[in-house]
Amino acid sequence: MTRFMDVHHGMQGITAEQLQQGHDATAAVEAEEGVHFEHAWADPESGTVYCLSEGPSPEAVRRAHERGGGPRPDEIHAVPLMV
Amino acid sequence: MTRFMDVHHGMQGITAEQLQQGHDATAAVEAEEGVHFEHAWADPESGTVYCLSEGPSPEAVRRAHERGGGPRPDEIHAVPLMV
Repeated sequence: MTRFMDVHHGMQGITAEQLQQGHDATAAVEAEEGVHFEHAWADPESGTVYCLSEGPSPEAVRRAHERGGGPRPDEIHAVPLMV
Repeated sequence: MTRFMDVHHGMQGITAEQLQQGHDATAAVEAEEGVHFEHAWADPESGTVYCLSEGPSPEAVRRAHERGGGPRPDEIHAVPLMV
């Protein structure tokens, strides 16, 4: 399992409710891809959302977003180092 | 206090030891700026580092990096929403 940080752009105006709904929607399907979304953080002003997950591959992280009905990440980075 | 995600680019090849040293260096001075760095994640391949912190302003987050001798963040985003 690898940890990933994925980034969404263009989410200006996202609300706490929308972020929670997106998290819940992916949580409902993430197991099908072997992915677990740990946290997400959003900047409504710049429209940036960061999602921290663990999973087998970037493709699995992308598919988990798609199955949850959420927007496709614009970037997905493996982040093997953490402090 | 606001939560911030700052991003560094161009850190290709960063090691676990370098990430830990950077975190320790900012931890030693962060209180002077009222900032606390919670976590950092690094992708050595793309050279991207994400730092999650709490602090009074983006300027304080920038100064805490500088006082710690670390590289200046390329982006600093307030992330008031979190799940």
